[in-house]
Amino acid sequence: MRITRTIAETRAILHDERALHHTIGLVPTMGAFHEGHLSLMRQARSDCDCVVVSLFVNPTQFVPGEDLERYPRDFDRDADLAEQVGANVLFAPAAEEVYPEGYQTYVEVEELTKGLCGRFRPGHFRGVTTVVLKLLNMVNPHKAYFGEKDYQQLKVIERMARDLNLGVEIVAMPIVREPDGLAISSRNDYLSPQERGAALVVPRSLTEAQKVLQSGQRAAAALRQAVEACFAGEGMARLQYVEVVDAETLEPLEVVERPARLAVAALVGQTRLIDNCPLRP
Amino acid sequence: MRITRTIAETRAILHDERALHHTIGLVPTMGAFHEGHLSLMRQARSDCDCVVVSLFVNPTQFVPGEDLERYPRDFDRDADLAEQVGANVLFAPAAEEVYPEGYQTYVEVEELTKGLCGRFRPGHFRGVTTVVLKLLNMVNPHKAYFGEKDYQQLKVIERMARDLNLGVEIVAMPIVREPDGLAISSRNDYLSPQERGAALVVPRSLTEAQKVLQSGQRAAAALRQAVEACFAGEGMARLQYVEVVDAETLEPLEVVERPARLAVAALVGQTRLIDNCPLRP
Repeated sequence: MRITRTIAETRAILHDERALHHTIGLVPTMGAFHEGHLSLMRQARSDCDCVVVSLFVNPTQFVPGEDLERYPRDFDRDADLAEQVGANVLFAPAAEEVYPEGYQTYVEVEELTKGLCGRFRPGHFRGVTTVVLKLLNMVNPHKAYFGEKDYQQLKVIERMARDLNLGVEIVAMPIVREPDGLAISSRNDYLSPQERGAALVVPRSLTEAQKVLQSGQRAAAALRQAVEACFAGEGMARLQYVEVVDAETLEPLEVVERPARLAVAALVGQTRLIDNCPLRP
Repeated sequence: MRITRTIAETRAILHDERALHHTIGLVPTMGAFHEGHLSLMRQARSDCDCVVVSLFVNPTQFVPGEDLERYPRDFDRDADLAEQVGANVLFAPAAEEVYPEGYQTYVEVEELTKGLCGRFRPGHFRGVTTVVLKLLNMVNPHKAYFGEKDYQQLKVIERMARDLNLGVEIVAMPIVREPDGLAISSRNDYLSPQERGAALVVPRSLTEAQKVLQSGQRAAAALRQAVEACFAGEGMARLQYVEVVDAETLEPLEVVERPARLAVAALVGQTRLIDNCPLRP
């Protein structure tokens, strides 16, 4: 596996790969690799000739007051893991390589970023779309891999790729969970042992809402109430939002009568966790 | 010359060109071709194996109240002219091909678009950068050609290409003028014969300011006054702005002590004209 720090050296490697008619897969990450990231890399390994993993803790997607400084970083461990799953290139640029002096261009997907996490993290998705567009332009992959754990992010990036005629295939990968159901996230490491137990209310609330749907109750209000009832019984966790939205447009639904998504954000202690699941009518 | 209406057919042609290792040049236009456009096409013809001219009157760059509906359109004449200068592809998509239903992604270059025309046409450059990025992604050219007549637009597009790592070379071409000095523009057609005479105050004011600079006066205020004095003598033309700006950052300058640009916008009757010239210290 090659470790690159600059756009120029990364492009030089990929130029040679393209000359061999190799397909290129990109897995954009902020590091702190866990099974979620590794599942994306394994899929890219199986789909593509050349797997590029980017590792960049992107400052523009952190809202003031968020955890940019304490975001977990362990480059040597990440490099070992990426190598083990067969990545060909680990591209880990410095902030000045990505945002040189005078940088001033930003991309926004307007409607899809208004609700859900966009309401609580103003500017977050603008940072995400901007850095993802830049990484796609640097690497120019055939496919790029994103997890459904960040469901709104996935839909925003799919929309950007279509709207801007990027010609890349966005591959969505399912949420990876711990054996007890908690969706794997780099931010789970922030949880104390007691908070880690309390955090299980998040996946449990989704399962409860799915049971309510399966019982024949398709009103979004009833599904949201099932989630709220779970959180009412867990003092260490606070629900930030629960929404039933169209699976593609992310518009709030009153009734689940087409493919929908149930999305939840919660604060467990100081740690913000998100999770979601499909709702099939 | 091939005339294409869809992104897919344009890409199919260019796929074949790339397979032959041909270089591709893009000239983005809104049609109503004049010598300015033709100078870009001729340069592309001389630089590249395959010249693509796009013709799309982009609705997102017209501010409410502007001339989107009456913007000059003559497709057959434009097609003849493009063919005469040797374009290989004239790509003329419908609005729905460029902005299909649900479209919602926009690109902004933030600092460079604040002053000059950006102050009088809010949202204009957001429409320009968005459509240019889309066209660059559709065509994926080696080089793209823009005229210095729209100097702020040129600098904004150069900045976008650098910031978003587009890997395309932006080629700047000099302003083409009528024999009497008026910069050629599609909007000159709106002028009545009397207005056409009055419009000469625009290039004359630039020449006067350059004379003041050559006489040793490097204060921006003195150069602006020279422009204003010209307009004071021409009742049919109203100066919208005159600015002395850094040639790259477009920041207003007090003194011309590095490469600068003098930029003017004026209303002649109902018609808005812009022009600019270099100021070399």
